[in-house]
Amino acid sequence: MAKESDFIRLAQSFFKQHNRIKLGPGDDAAIISEVSTNDLVVSVDALIENVHFEPHWLEYEDMGYRALAASLSDLAAMGARPLTFFVNLELPTDIEIDEVREIMQGMSALGEKFCISPAGGNFTASDRIGIVTTVVGEVPKDGYIARCCAEEGDIIAITGEVGIVESAIRLFKVYNLASKIDHKLRSTAIMKFRRPMPRFEIIEKVRRVVKPRASIDISDGLSSDLFKLAEKADLEAVIYEELMPMPEVVKAVANEVGVDPWKIALSSGEEFELILVMPPEDFKKLQSEGIELIKIGEFRPTFRPTVKFVKTNGREIDYIKGFEHFSYL
Amino acid sequence: MAKESDFIRLAQSFFKQHNRIKLGPGDDAAIISEVSTNDLVVSVDALIENVHFEPHWLEYEDMGYRALAASLSDLAAMGARPLTFFVNLELPTDIEIDEVREIMQGMSALGEKFCISPAGGNFTASDRIGIVTTVVGEVPKDGYIARCCAEEGDIIAITGEVGIVESAIRLFKVYNLASKIDHKLRSTAIMKFRRPMPRFEIIEKVRRVVKPRASIDISDGLSSDLFKLAEKADLEAVIYEELMPMPEVVKAVANEVGVDPWKIALSSGEEFELILVMPPEDFKKLQSEGIELIKIGEFRPTFRPTVKFVKTNGREIDYIKGFEHFSYL
Repeated sequence: MAKESDFIRLAQSFFKQHNRIKLGPGDDAAIISEVSTNDLVVSVDALIENVHFEPHWLEYEDMGYRALAASLSDLAAMGARPLTFFVNLELPTDIEIDEVREIMQGMSALGEKFCISPAGGNFTASDRIGIVTTVVGEVPKDGYIARCCAEEGDIIAITGEVGIVESAIRLFKVYNLASKIDHKLRSTAIMKFRRPMPRFEIIEKVRRVVKPRASIDISDGLSSDLFKLAEKADLEAVIYEELMPMPEVVKAVANEVGVDPWKIALSSGEEFELILVMPPEDFKKLQSEGIELIKIGEFRPTFRPTVKFVKTNGREIDYIKGFEHFSYL
Repeated sequence: MAKESDFIRLAQSFFKQHNRIKLGPGDDAAIISEVSTNDLVVSVDALIENVHFEPHWLEYEDMGYRALAASLSDLAAMGARPLTFFVNLELPTDIEIDEVREIMQGMSALGEKFCISPAGGNFTASDRIGIVTTVVGEVPKDGYIARCCAEEGDIIAITGEVGIVESAIRLFKVYNLASKIDHKLRSTAIMKFRRPMPRFEIIEKVRRVVKPRASIDISDGLSSDLFKLAEKADLEAVIYEELMPMPEVVKAVANEVGVDPWKIALSSGEEFELILVMPPEDFKKLQSEGIELIKIGEFRPTFRPTVKFVKTNGREIDYIKGFEHFSYL
């Protein structure tokens, strides 16, 4: 069995010099130089076997990739740029060092896209794999985008289609479903589950033109996360069926399992697309710059914060529940 | 069963306004203002049920306290002052919200001593309690004390007695042992296990007078952690039986279980005392200021880094193995 010192060496081997990190893995703590023109942005997230995924859903590399992606997505939602990350790995005692290397390799593959690497970490024994990542990033001073601050009349936009991750999970879970869904649709969905991309690229483009009033990443489900924005602003979020994208794979999976495809699209968690909120004039500016956001609705005054889904036939449905993390799969 | 939103509210209720934290729990990430005269110090640590402790060893409050203490101890070792912390709680689905409150209460009790509170966190379902804490602190720019940099002739000093935590663990594990050890000794040992104090106070006093050349907190065991300093410096660490403190409880436990008390003292992990290394003239300065460190040895030139324990009878023993985290209890 591999020893802790092996794992520390492994973490060090994935660390790459970064001009803001003065001291990386291998000491009691990491040292990052501060810059008074910036604010620091920190978030923590976890990816736990048998809670967030079942073993056969992900390769070791995917586990590392996905764990880091989930944390980074929170930084993207704040409009931040990542600096480094820290990882606490809980590992079964019979895991091979090569398997741990694959987990780290997955993190590294994603980290390299943003020029970041692990500045520290910790390993503990466990009966299953658990990856807790703490990401550290930056925004220009007071330049962060929070969940608060949506206003009446603001546009609700998303950075991409939703529902695909929930479709992938149903593909994993429902016996024989995979064989009924077109191969290409299937593999696109599974790749989105295994290798989600934190949306730094689009938020950076947006930030060069306007500053959204509110932002959140879709981790619990569109309706559930949109509800958080509505609550903070004390407004009603209204989204429209006719504006919402409906991915082919969501339609196909919903059809096979016999549920409303909108139920999948609106509650699918861990999508890591962003919900961005801004005044209509700002949205127009982005359109004229060719920055592709999908407008799905707007905020309206209300007596009680809620999320309304307006069907093409005019019916209005209240959606306030999404994916609940705090339950077993 | 408590829901995730309950836990988030709980985390928020323990957050206290701090002038460096612009945005605390309840958004995608926390925002901390930066100061260009400082360096940021970050460390991650974990406390996992059935790995680091068995359920009956700790009350819920102790779990929170001890998890945070372990992370903070790493900041103390760097000579840093804490700013805030982040917590990932893995919780059994049948845990009561009041029990989670007790865990947070334990963290809060310790955090308040240093005017810090949680700026963010995350909850996930699990089959046992796991607490991963990420601590964020600061040192004046380039003022951190690393593990490297011990020099030939430097004094090795510790901030307090060692061996007590291992004694407490043996009291928990060995049936009937408790009844044979004096009640007062027993409760002192168990309190040190349950409520260890990160050594910020003494390191701050030291820093006002001198800057140690190297530092580490004793988390794997004195011999094992001292070996890390020896390796970094390519020197031999020599410590002397006649200089080492030998706590009464270690003697008593060692006697009852029939092992060499030095074996307990030198390998006892999670002690959270600091090893500080400095030139003899700096050590004298501290003595003349009345700052109480225990001198236990010095660094000598060597062909191969090692730790030597010199017995009062002149025998020299090589100790390089301490508590291995990466094994079940």
